[in-house]
Amino acid sequence: MSIRKFVTPEIIFGQGALSQIGESAARSGASKVFVVTDQGLIDAGWVDKALYYLRNAGLQYEIFSSITSNPKDLEVTEGVAHYLRSGCDALVAVGGGSPADTAKAIATLATNGGELQDYEGVNKIRHPLPPMVIVPSTAGTGSEVSQFAIIVDHQRRLKMSIISKSLIPDIAIIDPDLLNTKSARLAAATGMDALSHAIESYVSLAATPLTDIHALNAIRLIFANLKQSVFDRQDAVANNNMAMASLNAGIAFSNAILGAGHAMTHQIDGLLDTHHGETNATLLPHIMQFNLPVCRDKFNAIARQIDEAASQAGPKQDLAEKAIEAVSTLTKEIGLHNRLASVGLKKENIKTLSQNALNDACLVTNPRDATAEDIEKLFLKAY
Amino acid sequence: MSIRKFVTPEIIFGQGALSQIGESAARSGASKVFVVTDQGLIDAGWVDKALYYLRNAGLQYEIFSSITSNPKDLEVTEGVAHYLRSGCDALVAVGGGSPADTAKAIATLATNGGELQDYEGVNKIRHPLPPMVIVPSTAGTGSEVSQFAIIVDHQRRLKMSIISKSLIPDIAIIDPDLLNTKSARLAAATGMDALSHAIESYVSLAATPLTDIHALNAIRLIFANLKQSVFDRQDAVANNNMAMASLNAGIAFSNAILGAGHAMTHQIDGLLDTHHGETNATLLPHIMQFNLPVCRDKFNAIARQIDEAASQAGPKQDLAEKAIEAVSTLTKEIGLHNRLASVGLKKENIKTLSQNALNDACLVTNPRDATAEDIEKLFLKAY
Repeated sequence: MSIRKFVTPEIIFGQGALSQIGESAARSGASKVFVVTDQGLIDAGWVDKALYYLRNAGLQYEIFSSITSNPKDLEVTEGVAHYLRSGCDALVAVGGGSPADTAKAIATLATNGGELQDYEGVNKIRHPLPPMVIVPSTAGTGSEVSQFAIIVDHQRRLKMSIISKSLIPDIAIIDPDLLNTKSARLAAATGMDALSHAIESYVSLAATPLTDIHALNAIRLIFANLKQSVFDRQDAVANNNMAMASLNAGIAFSNAILGAGHAMTHQIDGLLDTHHGETNATLLPHIMQFNLPVCRDKFNAIARQIDEAASQAGPKQDLAEKAIEAVSTLTKEIGLHNRLASVGLKKENIKTLSQNALNDACLVTNPRDATAEDIEKLFLKAY
Repeated sequence: MSIRKFVTPEIIFGQGALSQIGESAARSGASKVFVVTDQGLIDAGWVDKALYYLRNAGLQYEIFSSITSNPKDLEVTEGVAHYLRSGCDALVAVGGGSPADTAKAIATLATNGGELQDYEGVNKIRHPLPPMVIVPSTAGTGSEVSQFAIIVDHQRRLKMSIISKSLIPDIAIIDPDLLNTKSARLAAATGMDALSHAIESYVSLAATPLTDIHALNAIRLIFANLKQSVFDRQDAVANNNMAMASLNAGIAFSNAILGAGHAMTHQIDGLLDTHHGETNATLLPHIMQFNLPVCRDKFNAIARQIDEAASQAGPKQDLAEKAIEAVSTLTKEIGLHNRLASVGLKKENIKTLSQNALNDACLVTNPRDATAEDIEKLFLKAY
């Protein structure tokens, strides 16, 4: 193994952990915080709770909530102007991947200037960012611990991957209670996003023994809890375990990066504004099939996380195909689409998407080299 | 589970990672670094290598190496005076637990003033410490990632546990090549220290799912690699795996704290200047026996990390006692003493040591409450 880095923010985990948001922002150096969130979180009452704790810590704040899912570069531009006007000196995100990634992008432009496109790719951010605290409200994104921000370029209609250690927030606060107010559909899609993070980072060329244990733990927790968490949205144990799974998957992919699945999903999300987790779920079994020839051992280890019976299988039993099958089955069982046609993709777009996927930073760590032609075939298989 | 924190420094791992020491210190903000190390590391040539990389990064330095094993408060006082005179603005430790803990203690007093005794216990450090980079040369201490510094109070003749998030260095650089120049005896003792970190943190009252995966992974790696690493000091694979094991155990215990074993070992180390790892190994099976009634499930999970056969045992097989037995066997196989009498303890000291152990911060998280009488009995069993 070559020399590898492993970085995580300070993590605060547990039911009720949202109460730590004020103290966390204050000790990160904030005096006035820019709260990035969305209307759903405001309606569910979580933002009011967060503001209460911020006030209690003696902090001023300004709210920014003009965000859509798959956040766009234009929304970030608006956010930067708002942030600079506001006199804020720190950012807090409360929400799913969209508020988290938007906060990171605002922080980047506010201190480094230029356009978001200048930072696409790996390690392009030069100056330190203001303090950031992220509180996820879904069990999927992993953005609360990751060095990734994924923002749609509205002109090119694709998602840019911005990857830099500077994007890791100071503190990640994971409060499983925030999951209670999500719809079953969102729980399903974000859960599959977490599973794709775990599986892609586990087989990534940049995986290390440190990322592997987090990835495998996430896979085990997702197979054991996602269905229950989708079917009973108030099940505290299932929600707790899904929050832990998403966190583990986030730690794994932040440090081991991802693969072809995310490189391809980013293109579809940018074009169609589909739900990232659902697109991922649709593609994942096909990517796994493509990677199988170079990942048989790792797929066997994945399969052993599926259930008690698989974990007890003798070491000589080959369960690699079972891993792929289990991912497909889970997607169907939780009611997600499993064809790209169903999420609205048009066949005529596949050629361009395949070409664009070649430029996504996530493709570099896919365990099997993929040409534009390979990617086109994979899109068609999942179509 | 209540709300829990999880913190690690940035980690750089891999053969040759020592080469990152200059760049790491520089980007932590250093201009002149205080290099805390010991004569063994200087003789082995590692310090010269480190200085080369520091110079390459444009850094000045000053060396402090007047350190013994089980570092003493008086050595720290000398170090603080030297640090303040030197004009250094950062610390780098290259060595085992002694240089690492000494560097942390120097950093504490240099910026917070007072006596080390003022910081004994949990969260007593008020002001931020200067940047610290730690490069371990043994696979045992875990200090490179931990919020612990353990220093001997020469008057009370006991080890003080200083526990604070401020003691986590900015960057931990783990280069398994540094293990090559250690004696078999040191490899054995430090390896058992790592095992006791992993086992005590796994059964700790403050354990979380995040610390558990690191603890179990450490236990698995130690049972699979310690013997080989002791018997063939140049085995790169075994050394690499032991370095990874020690790192994982460090992440686990820094966040889950330890237990009765360390609370007791700290007293003996302070009195006799014994090797911390060996004393730990001697006590560990007896502590496990004491904790068994409240830890049967966790001991079963530990036992399943011992070897392939144990990992394949049916879920209903009770292997808890096997875990204790395996720890005793390993200690003997790698040639360490397994009686406290052999490390020089006198029976008449046991009463005072037991009383002092009650005040050690590590005792608080032991899974089973222990009175002074319980601790006395445990000392006598291990005698």
